[in-house]
Amino acid sequence: MFDFTFHNPTRIIFGKDTETRIGQELKQAGLGRVLLVYGRESIKRSGLYDRVTQSLKTNNIAWVEHAGVSSNPLLSHVRAGVELAKKAGVDGLLAVGGGSVLDEAKAIAVGALAADDIWHYFIGTEVTAALPVCTVLTIAATGSEMNGNAVVTNEATQQKYAIHSEHVYPRFSILDPALTCSVPPDYSAYAAVDVIAHVIEGYFTGQGDNLQNRLVEAIIKTVMATTDVIMAEPDDYNARAEFMWAATLALNGLTPAGIGEYSFPNHMIEHSLSAIYNIPHGAGLAMVMPAWMRWFAPCNPEKFERFARQIFGLRTAAEGIEALERWFVAIKAPIRLAEMDIPASDIDRIAANAAALAEAWSISETYTKEAIANILRLAV
Amino acid sequence: MFDFTFHNPTRIIFGKDTETRIGQELKQAGLGRVLLVYGRESIKRSGLYDRVTQSLKTNNIAWVEHAGVSSNPLLSHVRAGVELAKKAGVDGLLAVGGGSVLDEAKAIAVGALAADDIWHYFIGTEVTAALPVCTVLTIAATGSEMNGNAVVTNEATQQKYAIHSEHVYPRFSILDPALTCSVPPDYSAYAAVDVIAHVIEGYFTGQGDNLQNRLVEAIIKTVMATTDVIMAEPDDYNARAEFMWAATLALNGLTPAGIGEYSFPNHMIEHSLSAIYNIPHGAGLAMVMPAWMRWFAPCNPEKFERFARQIFGLRTAAEGIEALERWFVAIKAPIRLAEMDIPASDIDRIAANAAALAEAWSISETYTKEAIANILRLAV
Repeated sequence: MFDFTFHNPTRIIFGKDTETRIGQELKQAGLGRVLLVYGRESIKRSGLYDRVTQSLKTNNIAWVEHAGVSSNPLLSHVRAGVELAKKAGVDGLLAVGGGSVLDEAKAIAVGALAADDIWHYFIGTEVTAALPVCTVLTIAATGSEMNGNAVVTNEATQQKYAIHSEHVYPRFSILDPALTCSVPPDYSAYAAVDVIAHVIEGYFTGQGDNLQNRLVEAIIKTVMATTDVIMAEPDDYNARAEFMWAATLALNGLTPAGIGEYSFPNHMIEHSLSAIYNIPHGAGLAMVMPAWMRWFAPCNPEKFERFARQIFGLRTAAEGIEALERWFVAIKAPIRLAEMDIPASDIDRIAANAAALAEAWSISETYTKEAIANILRLAV
Repeated sequence: MFDFTFHNPTRIIFGKDTETRIGQELKQAGLGRVLLVYGRESIKRSGLYDRVTQSLKTNNIAWVEHAGVSSNPLLSHVRAGVELAKKAGVDGLLAVGGGSVLDEAKAIAVGALAADDIWHYFIGTEVTAALPVCTVLTIAATGSEMNGNAVVTNEATQQKYAIHSEHVYPRFSILDPALTCSVPPDYSAYAAVDVIAHVIEGYFTGQGDNLQNRLVEAIIKTVMATTDVIMAEPDDYNARAEFMWAATLALNGLTPAGIGEYSFPNHMIEHSLSAIYNIPHGAGLAMVMPAWMRWFAPCNPEKFERFARQIFGLRTAAEGIEALERWFVAIKAPIRLAEMDIPASDIDRIAANAAALAEAWSISETYTKEAIANILRLAV
């Protein structure tokens, strides 16, 4: 077991109708004027916008709106948010939405206190301060509700990069599983793939012991079982709830504690796919993951055999990977590039983009442009 | 899945030689003068006292010493600590030791800011403030390093009672598994029993779903596997490390999140045993737990069957309980009252003591004096 530090100060408020407590919670957190960040019209159609703003009014929380966050949030939109946050003099951010909305709010929270352009923090400058971020989550997938990560796409350079900072852990996150019942089947499937991806990166590339392995396997089994229920019964509160909490635990620092160095090669390659083609992150991961697993399995055969045995009751690494791929097909996640209209002839271009990220993430020795192209060819 | 809030702000600093960072960490936490709380001579014999105080000196942290904490920390000693903390004007507590030392430091941290006697907070008064508590852990067992609990024994009334407050979560806890290598076999066994007890209370009395059940099972399997290694090789760093982290996760709020109402009947009955006989907490639990499980199994047969299946690969509730009891015997934990010289003729007296605690913990409807006596008779 390797040395680690673990510190996750986010308070989770989990349960039915908890979003109606938002105004009161903001007040208790000492916030009086927030930038309300959200996506497009869905939170208005669902009535969530009304419930949230009613709670803000009741508790005398003023707000300024920054709407229109897209999935794979864009740098230009973040910059507009930063400008608005500065101009409006808000003392905090309230993100209402999925992972993209939360990530954009975190980026704005950093930018609002920074003199230089926010993109600098994505390409190397250390984050030293941020406005407090509070969230109401509507899609369980990214784990952004309980971590210090934010991913933004620079559309000018086609770079999908991330910040990681203790300053952007949400003060609190409100998780009402009922809000996720309206997530459509395709995005529910992408979410499942994303959560599994979050835990398998460290599982296969780190050196976890029994405890961490078991925690990961507990999360994967829970994600698969609850997603099967959700596909059949999208309104099943309990399945949505278990899925939601599993998604949070999958990327809140719990599973990698003590596993030593590890990397995020699947996310790295996927970031290039969604930066170039603007496809859903989980869809990109579904194509990358089985390909990467086949490529990487010889580097850690015991772990891949353990995966096959513990998750599927199978024997060999290949059987385990195939079973996972079959499950992706069953939940209608794409497993080949062509399913998302990505031509095999683009592989070199994607690999070049991902190789730059490999450089930024300090894993370019293993993940050369050639290696990445080889992995992508396994997804043709 | 039930509604819950989860908030655990303690920072964990885990790994070899991390105790030498104590002065620097205290300084970063803004503390300059602490009450150093510890037990008897063992931290001096081991050299830990010297390493810690050297780090304090290097970082200009002043300290006043409050030594002599006993296992099952005593109210009189807590009161002396409160007086000293007030007189010395410390701005925080540094606990160096096992769960008892940490618990006493937490109680002193509350008392140091309180006008009335500290015992009031154990029998009902809400804790509203406490000095910051920081810890260096030397025995993995109680989970006190990452929770808001503190248990103290009032020797005058033979009451072993607890406080639970967000104000006494340690600011940070330093966990160096190497420090636990000197824990002798009997206390290593008691620690294993204690950790298992922490997770099975909620597992059997709450309504966990698959995720929480799996987390509990991951912890139990890890505790059993690592304890078997520790019994054979007390210096095995990796086993000590995995055990240590499992012990922390077992009582940091993770496993009960979402399981609804649950109770701590094993701890309740054990608190009476150690309050009256001053036996080690884990030894008391080893006697209570199989007895309670046999008594309670008919109330939740599916969960007991699941326990048998998942932990031992067995079929029936009875087989699972027997297997756990056999394992307690294997690690030399006592399973019958006589092994700790507790006469069966005392059962009524113990039950009367525990029934008062059942009242305080609001579970006296199920745990009447008669019910508790019946459970204890299964440990004769």
